[in-house]
Amino acid sequence: MPIITIEGPCLSTDQKRQLVRDLTKAARAVIPLPAEAFTVLIKENSHDNVGVGGELLADKIPN
Amino acid sequence: MPIITIEGPCLSTDQKRQLVRDLTKAARAVIPLPAEAFTVLIKENSHDNVGVGGELLADKIPN
Amino acid sequence: MPIITIEGPCLSTDQKRQLVRDLTKAARAVIPLPAEAFTVLIKENSHDNVGVGGELLADKIPN
Amino acid sequence: MPIITIEGPCLSTDQKRQLVRDLTKAARAVIPLPAEAFTVLIKENSHDNVGVGGELLADKIPN
Amino acid sequence: MPIITIEGPCLSTDQKRQLVRDLTKAARAVIPLPAEAFTVLIKENSHDNVGVGGELLADKIPN
Amino acid sequence: MPIITIEGPCLSTDQKRQLVRDLTKAARAVIPLPAEAFTVLIKENSHDNVGVGGELLADKIPN
Repeated sequence: MPIITIEGPCLSTDQKRQLVRDLTKAARAVIPLPAEAFTVLIKENSHDNVGVGGELLADKIPN
Repeated sequence: MPIITIEGPCLSTDQKRQLVRDLTKAARAVIPLPAEAFTVLIKENSHDNVGVGGELLADKIPN
Repeated sequence: MPIITIEGPCLSTDQKRQLVRDLTKAARAVIPLPAEAFTVLIKENSHDNVGVGGELLADKIPN
Repeated sequence: MPIITIEGPCLSTDQKRQLVRDLTKAARAVIPLPAEAFTVLIKENSHDNVGVGGELLADKIPN
Repeated sequence: MPIITIEGPCLSTDQKRQLVRDLTKAARAVIPLPAEAFTVLIKENSHDNVGVGGELLADKIPN
Repeated sequence: MPIITIEGPCLSTDQKRQLVRDLTKAARAVIPLPAEAFTVLIKENSHDNVGVGGELLADKIPN
């Protein structure tokens, strides 16, 4: 622990690399534990699996 | 916020559309916030990733 | 399974009762399983444990 | 309820079968409910979706 | 990683101790990683925050 | 969406304020969406609800 889970869109490996690095850095600045204690889980969601405002993102965001 | 996550089986886009609409409607009737404040995450699980009663659903439900 | 988790504000027991009933009803209309197969988890979050737009809700919403 | 979610690596069906059986058994030894009350969700994560110590597992673990 | 989360009832510290020990043991038998890699999160839910079959557990289970 | 959930120890309001601000900033640098689209959920866990290496943190960390 701590465990950071981010539910977001599909990302490239470079974006994931940056996300893991910077989310860990931001959390460590508040919770002073060794870096190895921090786990980040990236959950990629396609637009047809996410609803906002009662509508599928896939119906709100043109391809 | 609020965020509704549903862990369930694989669904069609139409089923997801109905689910997002009606889960948001049900939640808004209790939590009076603008529709845009509500996020729904649909998590589709194959039967070999779910266990009930100590057995894989894939072993309990014939194909 | 299915499991519906709602991350939201603190609620009264009556609100929770309505939420559980109507979220289950909405999900069953899409996923035709017995009512007993549906679990709803209500997660109540105080405003100082939720951030939107980079700010704590507790700082955005006057008491 | 109870619901056990395991976030882990990709697994074979046999590994999932054993995991579901033994996690349910371990939990039932503490929470004396019928086996059917226990749900296990297996979440398989590829190494480029997991960060430990600020780095992607994909960058830490040679293929 | 791996991370095991159990959503269940309120438990005593001894029950939690046994749960953490045996869930970790069960998972390690399938996923051969050092014990230190395994995190268990115990989420205690009161009966009025859980719904099964469209009803609050608090209404289904007499005190 | 995106939704960032951090499972961690108990924190002060100032720590939460910093966490929400900096986790949102780190995520926005990768996922270019308006700040209002980002939700952060802070989940505080007492040491007797977390296990690492098969032991309760409460048993590993002296008070």
